[in-house]
Amino acid sequence: MDIRPRDDAARWQQKAYSIIFESDTPAGRAFDIGLLAAIVLSVLAVMLESVRSIAAEYGHFLRAVEWFFTGLFIIEYLMRLLVVRRPLAYALSLLGIIDFLAIVPTLATLLLAGSRYLMVIRTLRLLRVFRIFKLGRFVGEGEFIVNALKASRFKILVFLAAVVSLAVVVGTLMYVVEGGQNGFTSIPKSIYWAIVTLTTVGYGDISPVTFLGQTLASVLMIMGYAIIAVPTGIVSAQMAMPAAPAAPPAPAYKQVVCHVCQADGHRPEAEFCWRCGEKL
Amino acid sequence: MDIRPRDDAARWQQKAYSIIFESDTPAGRAFDIGLLAAIVLSVLAVMLESVRSIAAEYGHFLRAVEWFFTGLFIIEYLMRLLVVRRPLAYALSLLGIIDFLAIVPTLATLLLAGSRYLMVIRTLRLLRVFRIFKLGRFVGEGEFIVNALKASRFKILVFLAAVVSLAVVVGTLMYVVEGGQNGFTSIPKSIYWAIVTLTTVGYGDISPVTFLGQTLASVLMIMGYAIIAVPTGIVSAQMAMPAAPAAPPAPAYKQVVCHVCQADGHRPEAEFCWRCGEKL
Amino acid sequence: MDIRPRDDAARWQQKAYSIIFESDTPAGRAFDIGLLAAIVLSVLAVMLESVRSIAAEYGHFLRAVEWFFTGLFIIEYLMRLLVVRRPLAYALSLLGIIDFLAIVPTLATLLLAGSRYLMVIRTLRLLRVFRIFKLGRFVGEGEFIVNALKASRFKILVFLAAVVSLAVVVGTLMYVVEGGQNGFTSIPKSIYWAIVTLTTVGYGDISPVTFLGQTLASVLMIMGYAIIAVPTGIVSAQMAMPAAPAAPPAPAYKQVVCHVCQADGHRPEAEFCWRCGEKL
Amino acid sequence: MDIRPRDDAARWQQKAYSIIFESDTPAGRAFDIGLLAAIVLSVLAVMLESVRSIAAEYGHFLRAVEWFFTGLFIIEYLMRLLVVRRPLAYALSLLGIIDFLAIVPTLATLLLAGSRYLMVIRTLRLLRVFRIFKLGRFVGEGEFIVNALKASRFKILVFLAAVVSLAVVVGTLMYVVEGGQNGFTSIPKSIYWAIVTLTTVGYGDISPVTFLGQTLASVLMIMGYAIIAVPTGIVSAQMAMPAAPAAPPAPAYKQVVCHVCQADGHRPEAEFCWRCGEKL
Repeated sequence: MDIRPRDDAARWQQKAYSIIFESDTPAGRAFDIGLLAAIVLSVLAVMLESVRSIAAEYGHFLRAVEWFFTGLFIIEYLMRLLVVRRPLAYALSLLGIIDFLAIVPTLATLLLAGSRYLMVIRTLRLLRVFRIFKLGRFVGEGEFIVNALKASRFKILVFLAAVVSLAVVVGTLMYVVEGGQNGFTSIPKSIYWAIVTLTTVGYGDISPVTFLGQTLASVLMIMGYAIIAVPTGIVSAQMAMPAAPAAPPAPAYKQVVCHVCQADGHRPEAEFCWRCGEKL
Repeated sequence: MDIRPRDDAARWQQKAYSIIFESDTPAGRAFDIGLLAAIVLSVLAVMLESVRSIAAEYGHFLRAVEWFFTGLFIIEYLMRLLVVRRPLAYALSLLGIIDFLAIVPTLATLLLAGSRYLMVIRTLRLLRVFRIFKLGRFVGEGEFIVNALKASRFKILVFLAAVVSLAVVVGTLMYVVEGGQNGFTSIPKSIYWAIVTLTTVGYGDISPVTFLGQTLASVLMIMGYAIIAVPTGIVSAQMAMPAAPAAPPAPAYKQVVCHVCQADGHRPEAEFCWRCGEKL
Repeated sequence: MDIRPRDDAARWQQKAYSIIFESDTPAGRAFDIGLLAAIVLSVLAVMLESVRSIAAEYGHFLRAVEWFFTGLFIIEYLMRLLVVRRPLAYALSLLGIIDFLAIVPTLATLLLAGSRYLMVIRTLRLLRVFRIFKLGRFVGEGEFIVNALKASRFKILVFLAAVVSLAVVVGTLMYVVEGGQNGFTSIPKSIYWAIVTLTTVGYGDISPVTFLGQTLASVLMIMGYAIIAVPTGIVSAQMAMPAAPAAPPAPAYKQVVCHVCQADGHRPEAEFCWRCGEKL
Repeated sequence: MDIRPRDDAARWQQKAYSIIFESDTPAGRAFDIGLLAAIVLSVLAVMLESVRSIAAEYGHFLRAVEWFFTGLFIIEYLMRLLVVRRPLAYALSLLGIIDFLAIVPTLATLLLAGSRYLMVIRTLRLLRVFRIFKLGRFVGEGEFIVNALKASRFKILVFLAAVVSLAVVVGTLMYVVEGGQNGFTSIPKSIYWAIVTLTTVGYGDISPVTFLGQTLASVLMIMGYAIIAVPTGIVSAQMAMPAAPAAPPAPAYKQVVCHVCQADGHRPEAEFCWRCGEKL
């Protein structure tokens, strides 16, 4: 009942709009779930094809699958353009660009082999599908995390800047200390090592050999071990906060997206899009 | 005094039920402790047998130990079936299935060598033995942890989904960047690498070699280093919460398990099982 | 003014007691600092001697240093026995045993070469020296940490039990999955791998090679990455607690140790040892 | 309007002072941004020159860039000396020393090749540039982190002392257990290994091989995994604190630095430097 396609829309366009862009009808929901499956399957096909032994045996089949889904996505993209009120606004919106990029890589292989793998950008299309879950508890929880991170973003940026500076200084010191040997063959490589160490990843592809180097590395490790407390403390403190004046329990959103700018998250009683002001 | 075996139970069945299923009599407690020892010893025997040098010398002895304990567990399983009011309900309950699976692998070796190791499932039987500790402080503390995790489960799921998506995207990028070389031989393998890196495990069995690859890896590491703050913050905030209206100090549970569904954790004054409603 | 040596103590014993066991006189404080230096130097000497190139050149000197400090520690130990009211009680107290063990290894090398390294137990003697710091802010802070850990000890034990169980189950699974190859040569070794992975250490001396193994390892890593949130959350929540009824600002302790049981931390106005009841 | 150069300052000195030392005029701000770029570029040039393949091709150009920026920094340093009221006080202040050290390494290469890399100390000059950000939200956030760390510094020191002690004891034990083999060739090296393990870095350049060694390592890893909770808890608790009596919202500082001691962070209405008492 919230379908608002083009003003001059034919019946089929109204119907298609409701199916493709919304998820509060059985058909719309089925479409979203089918889309989810198609995205996952097409990404899986590309992944499997990258495994040499599988490619040798099922290469043709997997490539067919890939083209099949690319075909589907092209049709879907064209449909979206057709039923939306302002096709250009859609094409230039974030989700519209992602939809477009999802079909380009396969087509591009006709010109340039290997570009196929860029298709992994399709994973980003899952963002669109997450709208399905908007109905469940996941929205609130996801928003809680995102909000805590947003509120802490300046603190986290300052922290990251400090970490990177530390890695630059220690990395260069190590280059001098280890004398350009034992894997520390250049300053950028030594900085890479410092980041590997500071974050406690520790591949071991490069590791200090001299006594002085190992001592310096030990100091860096202990710092990395203690420093992790900072972002953790920031986020913990943010999340433990009394949540301001106890935000009202996240209103159920209207299950409609704006047919112009594709924004969602409208209040149940909303008559107009909160982003572009278009009538919903 | 809370023994409730089959209605038509012989004296010995009543007695056996109290020993096997409950732990508030000296005999019942001794049985539980003996069971704990038997489980640990039988698992240890299988572990030791997997060490080639030990197997060469003590193989026969260890196998005898294994069969001895399997024999005990078979007898125990049959006893449980005999004394329980509804044998089928028990056999199909979670603990009943675990009890059954604990004896199958050894028997299966008669048909299929190697299946023996599945016996490690016996470790899960320790769940049953944890009931002994139900008496001490451990219940409350364990429940505190489990409750905090339960309350945070949606947040943690959203977080894990984000982590896995990130690993998929970065893994594929690395496959393209490193050109299918230096260990990044396929997309699934590159995703495995991304997970190894993002979680700061960092085996080093696969590690980037090109400059671009090392740069991308550095970004991923710093993200992994900062991202860990999210689950930590979630759980910390949850645990620091004022515990709602100060839950009454965790009542001491009745030390009885339901003779039908094996549920425990009944209120001291409970007359009926909280799960299946059977009279206790 | 709080010196309480043997009742029949000679003047020199009283003086020695105050110097050796207490730290509120200039001499007592100087003794503690000298002891700190002696411990650190003697441990350093053993460390350096373990480095082959250094041992080749300075071996004799380092061994002389070691015997010198061992001589000092023997004299110190005998002095402590002489001036203390109940020598046996001291000899059997924790600190007394550590004092004794600190001199045994060097002596034992007369019988058994190599036992020398056990001398590292001398590091534990630093515990005694920490009393010096009792005066500063460190006591309160150290106690804050220890108290938070103590208050969380049941939660942490439950958590560690869960981690070890998980490592046992996953380790055995990996042994089956990787088929006893690629380093997973026995179940104990596989469990070792599981712990290396779960704690995000990730040496890479053993790492999965099969697809199934890498998938299982990925799951384990993500679990280890998320699970770390649990102990962190526990301790954070404990530390963030309003500290009960705002404990009065940690009283300054009497700077005296009981001459019988060596306990310290007596209230300023205490007349008797809080542990053994002896008059201070 | 806050320019306070030498009392006998010529017009150009007043002007220069305002540009070089302050950032509340367009010129002053432009100078700071230019300085930021110069520092980053000069550090980048040294980094790139350390990469052998790049040095082979662009070595001369990069060295020219390095000398160009060093020339700029020398001019800048002399200017600072000229316009400041008390040149010696400036030269001996922290920032003054850093400014000096930033130009020494390049000059020193005339005498001693290789000293060039010490130039990375220029990164520390970024500290000066951070003043630009003093205007934005970053000050408050950075100060929040620094304050939380400062307030926790005693706790963190106690924690680090405990970690290092643990590493020393376990490292020596491992040296004994692994018998000076498998990479554990000396006690210092074993301590290095213990730190690598305890901090969950885990290079794998040294890893235990014997059963006893792997068991000991497992215990150490689990401890390291659990111990990380301590600094995290400390910082989280500190940050979650109600911030005392809700500190007034961080006053906007006067955008002036003391022309004697280079201190900044003066209250808007300040007439005198809070550090050296000089008139602002």
